[in-house]
Amino acid sequence: VAKRLEKFKTTIFTQMSSLAIKHGAINLGQGFPNFDGPEFVKEAAIQAIRDGKNQYARGYGVPDLNSAVAERFKKDTGLVVDPENEVTVTSGCTEAIAATMLGLINPGDEVIVFAPFYDSYEATLSMAGAKVKCVTLRPPNFSVPIDELKSIVSKNTRAILMNTPHNPTGKMFTREELNAIASLCIENDILVFSDEVYDKLVFEMDHISIASLPGMFERTVTLNSLGKTFSLTGWKIGWAIAPPHLTWGVRQAHAFLTFATSTPMQHAAATALRAPDSYYEELKRDYNAKKTILVDGLKSVGFTVYPSSGTYFVVVDHTPFGLENDIAFCEYLIKEVGVVAIPTSVFYLNPEDGKNLVRFTFCKDEETLRSAVERMKEKL
Amino acid sequence: VAKRLEKFKTTIFTQMSSLAIKHGAINLGQGFPNFDGPEFVKEAAIQAIRDGKNQYARGYGVPDLNSAVAERFKKDTGLVVDPENEVTVTSGCTEAIAATMLGLINPGDEVIVFAPFYDSYEATLSMAGAKVKCVTLRPPNFSVPIDELKSIVSKNTRAILMNTPHNPTGKMFTREELNAIASLCIENDILVFSDEVYDKLVFEMDHISIASLPGMFERTVTLNSLGKTFSLTGWKIGWAIAPPHLTWGVRQAHAFLTFATSTPMQHAAATALRAPDSYYEELKRDYNAKKTILVDGLKSVGFTVYPSSGTYFVVVDHTPFGLENDIAFCEYLIKEVGVVAIPTSVFYLNPEDGKNLVRFTFCKDEETLRSAVERMKEKL
Ligand SMILES: CSCCC(=O)C(=O)O
Ligand SMILES: CSCCC(=O)C(=O)O
Repeated sequence: VAKRLEKFKTTIFTQMSSLAIKHGAINLGQGFPNFDGPEFVKEAAIQAIRDGKNQYARGYGVPDLNSAVAERFKKDTGLVVDPENEVTVTSGCTEAIAATMLGLINPGDEVIVFAPFYDSYEATLSMAGAKVKCVTLRPPNFSVPIDELKSIVSKNTRAILMNTPHNPTGKMFTREELNAIASLCIENDILVFSDEVYDKLVFEMDHISIASLPGMFERTVTLNSLGKTFSLTGWKIGWAIAPPHLTWGVRQAHAFLTFATSTPMQHAAATALRAPDSYYEELKRDYNAKKTILVDGLKSVGFTVYPSSGTYFVVVDHTPFGLENDIAFCEYLIKEVGVVAIPTSVFYLNPEDGKNLVRFTFCKDEETLRSAVERMKEKL
Repeated sequence: VAKRLEKFKTTIFTQMSSLAIKHGAINLGQGFPNFDGPEFVKEAAIQAIRDGKNQYARGYGVPDLNSAVAERFKKDTGLVVDPENEVTVTSGCTEAIAATMLGLINPGDEVIVFAPFYDSYEATLSMAGAKVKCVTLRPPNFSVPIDELKSIVSKNTRAILMNTPHNPTGKMFTREELNAIASLCIENDILVFSDEVYDKLVFEMDHISIASLPGMFERTVTLNSLGKTFSLTGWKIGWAIAPPHLTWGVRQAHAFLTFATSTPMQHAAATALRAPDSYYEELKRDYNAKKTILVDGLKSVGFTVYPSSGTYFVVVDHTPFGLENDIAFCEYLIKEVGVVAIPTSVFYLNPEDGKNLVRFTFCKDEETLRSAVERMKEKL
């Protein structure tokens, strides 16, 4: 294996999902629904396949999807973007992240991340040769320590990579935090890469795209995808929205990472993004109910549950149960209790920082969530 | 844009396909069929979507597709590979190439390519920080100049990246050439990355996977995909076959480039790869007929047509028509004649080497091929 990837292990999601299957455990680990996506989106994919939309898509997206992404972004943020020059369709948000790093970051550039962070951030920054700097979000509120953030900005800081709503904590960046980050970026000519794949799964406040703040669009790459919002995580349709000069870099990397993304799925994605408001409202209602079941359940089991205002994840402190760290706890949970969670130490530059925390997902049917809680009540 | 991608332009395929649409020209440029893939494969995808196979696939492939790839490889090469540890499913062969480079090549490693070469090779080698060394295959036979190849091997040579059947020339590497390359690699401990996406489109001799030569499997990554064989270029299913120690590197890069590939399409791909022999025979028969129409047509127009024994491409010398180079010729062809071809200079490290050659594809219905020939006869 090349040096740039030497330090990385099999992704925790793959490890944990295999263990779930092996031990017949209830999988509240990797974030994928155990229910299906909406019929109208599936039918749109079937129609596209039947209609012979099966050859290479245009590299940066089928025109209809680029337009649908732009329309959706306008509804969500008020920003008018050019679907032809400011939207790039990718093979999931993971590819959008990789293309952003490889397309815009030079070796030696410093990029700031907020720990805990999704594991592909560090790996793709390593591929790009970036120097990773890190600010840690700490419980209970996982607020952005603005002074600490300011103190690590240097003249080599090229970008801040952020994620709101935030995986794994469920934290949403507040307007105040976003304003502070925006000022810092404008003053120091820093880019923002903002992963917003959970933007439709918000329970307590409205999601804010940092690109919508004054002066920010021109320095922001907004990353998003279809999977979480439409319960179709396996379709792997993502996109990057950015001004033309940043889009150029993203597209150049994308052109050589995958060239283009599944054509029939792109057509279906365009249909999905044009769903009526009622779809999004119902989605939130459903997830709110699931969240309540899981959060109340985890509390009744005895965990300290940290507040999650977005995503379909919640983190808890497992220390009341006496295992030495998050990994040991998760192993015990799989083998002795029959439930899978994700240890969070893998989301930190310094694994020690995550040793008290584990993440559960509530993107499962209510029955499954209840059974998981039952198992924990009985056996923990 | 990051320095690693600065020198690359919009891919020639995207450029030419846009021009084709703009000028209403017949597109014999980018290699995608203007006919649809087989019903049984499309139905398998539809079934998978209906059956709810819509969540994240296992990162390195759904088990059934890994198995189908291994079965197919055994049929084709006699080699028995372990689907769990030697097969990685990717989002098209383009991603398999990127993952191979980023997963196995370190900055400063030398990688040898054969010009003309597919444009993503140079770009992904640049992403990996490799030093590209190049041997040119020259008309009329595009044979491998073995002595030249030997002379550029150094102690820093990490890999040879090859492509057989070869895009754009249609050349197939002969057993003698493969033996010579194999000896060279074994003597000098060099890896081979072999792009074999056109392995089923062969008209004059059998395709040989270099992995099947003695001592070669352990040092070869064999790259392939669904798109060309099943006329479904837009589905973007590819794979890499390699021994476990090389598979590890490919998988680590893949995990962070895209994580996983479209689940329903993977299920359909497994069905496709288990097609009866008759499917592959008919495919060849059809393509042989198309090839004859195009090759005879191009000769009758007045081109010098170089022999193509595989792929769905053929290269010709355009100099009888008096344009100064391949780019000028292709522009004339689009605007004045209404036919799109691909200039080959973009496939060379030194563009001068390709200035006499342009590439046509015959992956179009016979009517389209005949019309293109008619237009050229009338207007060239
Ligand atoms: C790409 S696998 C991970 C799914 C996910 O986003 C998560 O579980 O954090
Ligand atoms: C990925 S676009 C190119 C299709 C193709 O392989 C070619 O035309 O050479």
